[in-house]
Amino acid sequence: MARNRVAFQGARGAFSEDAARQLLGNAITFKPCERFEEVFESLASGDVNAAVVPIENTLHGSIHENYDHLLDFKLPIVGETRVRIVHNLIGRPGGTLSKVKTAISHPVALRQCLKFFKQHKRIRSEIFYDTAGSVRRIMEEDDPSVAAIASATAAKYYGAKLLKKSIEDDRQNYTRFFLLRQKAPKRPAKKGVPLKTSIVFATPNKPATLFRCMSAFALRDINLDKIESRPFRGRPFEYLFYLDFLGSPDDPNCRNAMSHLREITDFVAVLGCYPQAA
Amino acid sequence: MARNRVAFQGARGAFSEDAARQLLGNAITFKPCERFEEVFESLASGDVNAAVVPIENTLHGSIHENYDHLLDFKLPIVGETRVRIVHNLIGRPGGTLSKVKTAISHPVALRQCLKFFKQHKRIRSEIFYDTAGSVRRIMEEDDPSVAAIASATAAKYYGAKLLKKSIEDDRQNYTRFFLLRQKAPKRPAKKGVPLKTSIVFATPNKPATLFRCMSAFALRDINLDKIESRPFRGRPFEYLFYLDFLGSPDDPNCRNAMSHLREITDFVAVLGCYPQAA
Repeated sequence: MARNRVAFQGARGAFSEDAARQLLGNAITFKPCERFEEVFESLASGDVNAAVVPIENTLHGSIHENYDHLLDFKLPIVGETRVRIVHNLIGRPGGTLSKVKTAISHPVALRQCLKFFKQHKRIRSEIFYDTAGSVRRIMEEDDPSVAAIASATAAKYYGAKLLKKSIEDDRQNYTRFFLLRQKAPKRPAKKGVPLKTSIVFATPNKPATLFRCMSAFALRDINLDKIESRPFRGRPFEYLFYLDFLGSPDDPNCRNAMSHLREITDFVAVLGCYPQAA
Repeated sequence: MARNRVAFQGARGAFSEDAARQLLGNAITFKPCERFEEVFESLASGDVNAAVVPIENTLHGSIHENYDHLLDFKLPIVGETRVRIVHNLIGRPGGTLSKVKTAISHPVALRQCLKFFKQHKRIRSEIFYDTAGSVRRIMEEDDPSVAAIASATAAKYYGAKLLKKSIEDDRQNYTRFFLLRQKAPKRPAKKGVPLKTSIVFATPNKPATLFRCMSAFALRDINLDKIESRPFRGRPFEYLFYLDFLGSPDDPNCRNAMSHLREITDFVAVLGCYPQAA
């Protein structure tokens, strides 16, 4: 096994590969998985020693399924990174934009390129299960009228051609990824890099509970970075809250906030402590 | 035009029809739409005078796209209801469970029936774009080996047969729906029915802002029912918050909370005030 063998969802060339390289450098091998659950299973079983999963996109929102898996699999978050999502129209070598009649890609990617489709009315969009997989697909077929929408990494990996770069509607398109390991490192800190901690908690169904939970942090000047609610299974219309705060559970101040939070909530779990992305 | 002509997403027989009947009774006609955006557009243009959209499911979580549409279309929420989601295996008249080899349905419905597929290993699941639409599909084809997974309402509508009732994994499966109109009624209150209000707000990116926002309600003993965050377009890694509280903006107490909230936030919008579902 290479030093880092990384599971991710999607076909080779997915944006998750870019995230993995940002987090771990280039000396890695990849295990592409069809479903997110398989990514978590691969790491839990030791088939890989790292996993990279998207957790939120600045246009689409959170990838809620992965919040559920973080809780279920209890695989610690040890890093985070942000990838600027650039969608490109990708064709076969020798292909041209003028020949393209159909563009295939994941529905989220298609929705993020609506202006492109408005400007090129002869090109219709067609749903495919995966962005990078759509490039593999067009390379398998011999049809210059079909193009894919995916990352430059995918184009390079499959030896395809960038027909039009950066066709996404909104450049403020970033995806935040988590790096997961089987075990949390003993010392997550690099000196000088601020740490972030992700936790999940369940609140009893009483008035002002979430307010009290947030007070545990606000009263100690601990900054919250994100809060996300998910349904609490078995308790209809009650919620779990996923929260990121700046700091580490090893800081006395954050440790006190966590004890305070435990007084108020039914349960609290730390999902990971990791260096904050730049 | 019938007194109530209701747009909803999906094919005839969708769970949204059950929600519409719970909210408006049986004297309604329906306009099925392919996409949620079309539902909102139909109401905005006056093609229908009501729309029913799902907003959260107790297992799957929120339907985030509809939160975005609520903000974009500014069509007021005037009612809410909860539908217990019962998935059934549905075949052609004369069909039997033993003949079924494939079950087609929406991916969320398929994922909510995993135990059924474990118990019936010879039946494989296949993704279809819609639950009720899957019933229409099997009725169009003449293949007893293909069944659908959908509501009893869909089976009835298409004259199909319930092969096995209630095959969902978890009975704590409810979807909350909103009823939307073009204009909010002047007096949303039925005497004696408690009111709920849905709002959306954006917070400046400063420490403890969300805590302060929640204090506007907690300090006035106003109960929050739900909070949901969505990405703030154009401001990467900043968020909009959708919040439901018990009460009406006409109550002096809630009015004060809203003024307090406006002091803290960049913007606040009321999405609707409506009788709370039982």
